[in-house]
Amino acid sequence: MPITLYDLAGANPDLRFSPYCWRTKLALKHKGLDYETIPWRFTDTAALAPSGQSKVPTLIDNGRWVHDSWSIALYLDETYPSKPKLFPDAQSRTLAKFLNSWCDWSVLPNSRALAVRNVFKIIHDKDKAHFRASREKALGVPLEQLGLDREAAHKTFVQGLKPADVTLADHAFLHGAEPGYGDYALFGTLLWPHTVCPEPVIVEDSHIGRWFARMMALNGGWVAACPTVRNLAAAK
Amino acid sequence: MPITLYDLAGANPDLRFSPYCWRTKLALKHKGLDYETIPWRFTDTAALAPSGQSKVPTLIDNGRWVHDSWSIALYLDETYPSKPKLFPDAQSRTLAKFLNSWCDWSVLPNSRALAVRNVFKIIHDKDKAHFRASREKALGVPLEQLGLDREAAHKTFVQGLKPADVTLADHAFLHGAEPGYGDYALFGTLLWPHTVCPEPVIVEDSHIGRWFARMMALNGGWVAACPTVRNLAAAK
Repeated sequence: MPITLYDLAGANPDLRFSPYCWRTKLALKHKGLDYETIPWRFTDTAALAPSGQSKVPTLIDNGRWVHDSWSIALYLDETYPSKPKLFPDAQSRTLAKFLNSWCDWSVLPNSRALAVRNVFKIIHDKDKAHFRASREKALGVPLEQLGLDREAAHKTFVQGLKPADVTLADHAFLHGAEPGYGDYALFGTLLWPHTVCPEPVIVEDSHIGRWFARMMALNGGWVAACPTVRNLAAAK
Repeated sequence: MPITLYDLAGANPDLRFSPYCWRTKLALKHKGLDYETIPWRFTDTAALAPSGQSKVPTLIDNGRWVHDSWSIALYLDETYPSKPKLFPDAQSRTLAKFLNSWCDWSVLPNSRALAVRNVFKIIHDKDKAHFRASREKALGVPLEQLGLDREAAHKTFVQGLKPADVTLADHAFLHGAEPGYGDYALFGTLLWPHTVCPEPVIVEDSHIGRWFARMMALNGGWVAACPTVRNLAAAK
């Protein structure tokens, strides 16, 4: 039986944008594990009750509930040691952990001014009140006041990616010659603004832009085939 | 003949505080290479003329001049391949490069409000006009206006270290079980405010504080024996 993953979705169930769910899907692909996703909305907390918490990614594997993208990554390596390892050694794990934390503490905060208002536009109506209340409480401003200066917000976002850009100047991936969990952490994080913003956020002609294209091409290019608000708009 | 390293010094030649020179000294220790340092001041640019530039770290190795801490690290591994490697594989190099860049783009900027005014106090009189002019131009404010709210500056500094702190919660070093160049990059960077600030900047009771103590203890604890403004003041 394949793994079941609750995956955050917009009003359109095909629009998947959670930076944390992306990390988990990329980890599952790396391991070569079969999985199916259930589109989940912020207010579908009852569905996750058996996991004892109310956030995604949450997966069910042979009746076992596991949540939190980092814990899931550790779980997958432990449970499926014969599949390609996410953390082959201590160094790959510290690198992944550092990049994962850097994404949470730096890249994600720098993406908010670009992404949050756009997330609000594409989520299910039933989620809107919850989303507005929780984000406005956390950020301390009305959603409408976020990222009004798109150019400044994009500059901060790009500038904040500098350590990765510099590293990728002479390495194919953040883990060296092959992608590792740290690459998935950053790629998954960037897929958040990439998926929900009406304008592209990744600067194609940059080291990180070329790495982003390489990440898109992994595993038969399945991520590139996933909808964004831009290609959904173009399809109309 | 040992390697000669030009090493930034204060008015007191024993006070060495450059975050980049620290990275190089830590790299030389890792390689187990003999070196001697020449105390150098910001305005001693003539001494570096043969290197074609005016900054430290700059070293002379068998008549060859090499500058820039990252270039020096690569040079040392290339020139002394039989000595312990700074970059044993591609992954350790990407990890080191990322951490090195993160220090330059995040940790150093977050340290300025704590360090820069204190650096001004301890440098040689002949350096003061140059230091003030160049820093005020770069930072856009008079030195006297930097870090006036010490508590806020320290909070920003500590908060910015979060990705490393989280990583060190379950790993001895940023490279895993043993220290690598990424550890030296961060340790060297932190030795800048650590050396020049009248109050300690590292929170001892934190993962990063315990890692800092482990770094201090490496190679017989030679760094712990180097002067800071605090122990120079205590010795008076």
